[in-house]
Amino acid sequence: MFIQPTPTLRRSGEALVILDQTGLPWRAEQRQLATLDDVAEAITAMRVRGAPLIGCAAAFGVAVALASGPADDAALDHALAVLRATRPTAVNLAWVLERMAQRLQPLSAHARRAAAWAEAEAIRADDAARCEAIGAHGLSRLRTLPAPAGRPLRVMTHCNAGWLATAGAGTALAPVYAAHAAGLAIEVFVSETRPRLQGLLTAWELAAAGIAHVLSADNAAGHLLTASKIDAVIVGADRIAANGDVANKIGTYLKALAARAAGVPFFVAAPLSTFDAATPNGAAIPIEARADDEVLTITGLDADGERRSVRLAAMGTRAANPAFDVTPAALVTAFVTERGLVEPAQLSYFLRNAATCFNPRP
Amino acid sequence: MFIQPTPTLRRSGEALVILDQTGLPWRAEQRQLATLDDVAEAITAMRVRGAPLIGCAAAFGVAVALASGPADDAALDHALAVLRATRPTAVNLAWVLERMAQRLQPLSAHARRAAAWAEAEAIRADDAARCEAIGAHGLSRLRTLPAPAGRPLRVMTHCNAGWLATAGAGTALAPVYAAHAAGLAIEVFVSETRPRLQGLLTAWELAAAGIAHVLSADNAAGHLLTASKIDAVIVGADRIAANGDVANKIGTYLKALAARAAGVPFFVAAPLSTFDAATPNGAAIPIEARADDEVLTITGLDADGERRSVRLAAMGTRAANPAFDVTPAALVTAFVTERGLVEPAQLSYFLRNAATCFNPRP
Repeated sequence: MFIQPTPTLRRSGEALVILDQTGLPWRAEQRQLATLDDVAEAITAMRVRGAPLIGCAAAFGVAVALASGPADDAALDHALAVLRATRPTAVNLAWVLERMAQRLQPLSAHARRAAAWAEAEAIRADDAARCEAIGAHGLSRLRTLPAPAGRPLRVMTHCNAGWLATAGAGTALAPVYAAHAAGLAIEVFVSETRPRLQGLLTAWELAAAGIAHVLSADNAAGHLLTASKIDAVIVGADRIAANGDVANKIGTYLKALAARAAGVPFFVAAPLSTFDAATPNGAAIPIEARADDEVLTITGLDADGERRSVRLAAMGTRAANPAFDVTPAALVTAFVTERGLVEPAQLSYFLRNAATCFNPRP
Repeated sequence: MFIQPTPTLRRSGEALVILDQTGLPWRAEQRQLATLDDVAEAITAMRVRGAPLIGCAAAFGVAVALASGPADDAALDHALAVLRATRPTAVNLAWVLERMAQRLQPLSAHARRAAAWAEAEAIRADDAARCEAIGAHGLSRLRTLPAPAGRPLRVMTHCNAGWLATAGAGTALAPVYAAHAAGLAIEVFVSETRPRLQGLLTAWELAAAGIAHVLSADNAAGHLLTASKIDAVIVGADRIAANGDVANKIGTYLKALAARAAGVPFFVAAPLSTFDAATPNGAAIPIEARADDEVLTITGLDADGERRSVRLAAMGTRAANPAFDVTPAALVTAFVTERGLVEPAQLSYFLRNAATCFNPRP
């Protein structure tokens, strides 16, 4: 079982304590969230991030809300609405809040408080178990790739879908951790993932785990896939439509195109909760547009090492800052789920039968 | 005729004065280069950048070298060798130095000094004229695109191939400036172009010219091409192989893949000097690997606005930092040259006959 070097979130009394990811890789600091607003702000400001971890944080957010104020129907509905509005794209968030609602709505206000903590803990434990299963299934698939002679297996990823994005070993990186634990030599190619640089989180968490990794600009993915003998691309997902179209961090689609052009298999690792049967295809997935400022305010050092900030908006520059893009199902080699691998062509059968069949191994 | 708001380079006495592009968009400062080493350093450190401008700077570099020291055969050979070694990918550099060599080698040391300045000025004037012609031909092609109803024409570019990259109106942006001058409403989508952020140079020079533009992270190109009704992609080139494969700034290939997938025409604007008949295909183009530090040292502000620098190498992170990638000819709709438009299928005929035929309009 994968143990997180620092827990991404944990209960502390009546509060939630998170590893504040906005400080990484500069500082690894914990932050206590004692109110509903604290939790909502932490999700919106991406102090916790990654679709599975957002879901866990929202579950604990309901518990924090009921612990720090009234726990009647109005308070519960308010907490659910506030948390649901924090981020629009990830489907886990809606799914987790629906699970909390179904568990808590029938209870008395008094019983709700304890039940909310218990349900949030159960959601967290479920997430860790799902990560573990995704890792095991992903590793099985990695072992089937034509074996590289005299070099480690090379996996490219995007953004951060590792342990930092979950309550367990991660999604896209779970197979990497499983491979490492099994003694398989493995090397991870990760790109910066502008504008928020979540690729640095991936470098940070891989370094913490002692796994070899190579960082590049997002622009380099095409060249690296063509030139560097990458064996597989594995990414996470924020939402997977019924037809297999994948919404994930902006830039994923470019890597999928380049992987297809280079003949490299492209895997999407995600728990069942990420599949949204109610969304027919990628065109129906809402794409969050984040603040222009993430692109238009460039703060850094100029050539003399002096700190400068340039606000491009002042010179008339506008921004386009979509947080996600959609990778068509046709570019996906297989989905790596906690129940096993599913190819896009088998997806609708899988979604109809996932509850009762397949391979809930580990 | 397009007039540069600030000259990218000009002679001043026995020195070369450049607009130092490493300060942009923070500061627009000029820098005087009085020795061969100054000029070589300015090219290597990307104070002047863009394949055409590198060529012009190298030509003036020969003149500066001969003016500031001996002008005998050994000195000339030394200057040519030092300048040739500054950047490995752009072919203009080699082409310009060959032209300088052919002009200067037959002359006496005394005659060389004046001839070097004259030849460098001629190379600069040629470059500006070529940009103008590329702009005229590119505009003709833009006018043939299915006309958008009630909105400006939307052109996506990459990196900086505008006036800052040349001694004239630019290559990729020359058609944009020509369109603007002709009263056509036009809007440019530009991405940051990590790791060196040359997209900010494009935003800066477009703002200076009063042309509407939208900046995004490099990762957004796929989504924008799918979702934003971009009418055309126009990029520059550092070297074009005999078969039409294009070496250009890292990330160009990803935009070419996404343009093809979205059904958007993909143009490569470049003067004849960028075509290298001696290089059979993209695999034969040397790709410059720049310093790891461009990727591994992230300097910025953390969440509290405090300045931090993180050196990822210290935690074991390695880097891949290729400066260019290769876009296969099959993804190119047409090359926009100073002699007119050429589709990849016509390229070998064009290269055999370019000296004597085609359309040297401007």
